[in-house]
Amino acid sequence: MLIEEMTVEECRDVLTRASLARLACEMDGQPYVIPVNLAYDGSDLFGFATMGYKIDCMRGNPLVCVEIDDIKSQSEWTSVVVFGSYEELPDIPEHEKTRAHAYELLERRTMWWEPACVSIAHPAYPKSFAPIFYRIRVDRMTGHRASPDRVEVDSSSPKHGSRLSRWLEHVLTH
Amino acid sequence: MLIEEMTVEECRDVLTRASLARLACEMDGQPYVIPVNLAYDGSDLFGFATMGYKIDCMRGNPLVCVEIDDIKSQSEWTSVVVFGSYEELPDIPEHEKTRAHAYELLERRTMWWEPACVSIAHPAYPKSFAPIFYRIRVDRMTGHRASPDRVEVDSSSPKHGSRLSRWLEHVLTH
Repeated sequence: MLIEEMTVEECRDVLTRASLARLACEMDGQPYVIPVNLAYDGSDLFGFATMGYKIDCMRGNPLVCVEIDDIKSQSEWTSVVVFGSYEELPDIPEHEKTRAHAYELLERRTMWWEPACVSIAHPAYPKSFAPIFYRIRVDRMTGHRASPDRVEVDSSSPKHGSRLSRWLEHVLTH
Repeated sequence: MLIEEMTVEECRDVLTRASLARLACEMDGQPYVIPVNLAYDGSDLFGFATMGYKIDCMRGNPLVCVEIDDIKSQSEWTSVVVFGSYEELPDIPEHEKTRAHAYELLERRTMWWEPACVSIAHPAYPKSFAPIFYRIRVDRMTGHRASPDRVEVDSSSPKHGSRLSRWLEHVLTH
């Protein structure tokens, strides 16, 4: 498997096409990760949710990490990791335009995840129908792309076993 | 879409079948999430990696969160979230049996992700070939399963637009 670092432009392309992402936040040193729907406008990410554990986490500590991947096989995948910060977009005149922008972006995408009318994040929270729009300001991002290399193709025959198995065996017996 | 909470047994089944997971850790309040290969033995999760940013994070703060999902469509998915703590299994006699157990578990699975011979997690780290085996002691887990409901099936016709779109529109215009 050959792993290459992606350019910022390539990372942006992945973000622009994606709608499903994994969002990590934390509270009191306990990380939390859930799948979410996010939309990218070329600069920031936008999402919405109902009140729940992740919103509590991000209100307490706005630092977040977002991971977006496309895994076709063991040796063919891309993964983009975004570091950013959470910013709530409450329903006040100041955020009217940004909320409309977020809505438009999110509306364009297939909603793969978490219709915001269902709040299930944490049993401590009762169901709530109040939507919370938010922006994730992108601080930095990195991306990696894997493609099969010749050795892997050669060793894909069952008689050879997997490259990783052989490597693991080597490591554990030497 | 109907969302149900899964039983602990159902969550365990998902973990037992899974190999690809998203692992969240944190350092100095900055969350980090990456796809990893993990194997579950009915009690703990096991993985391996080379030295890199995530290992640094977990050495600094062993609290982690692991998310495992199977997303077939917008309205048909499962997601299990595990809270646990990282425990390194260094190559010393004390951990010999546990390392062999981890190896056996990981070997059984298709290695979808991150052959440990490639270290790409962070540009600050040079490539390293030393594998680090680790256990994630599962503290607690929650799981949710979604299935389409009648309303959704009825509204799947393009002329009606998506249920979510209509809901969003309602929320934003009232």
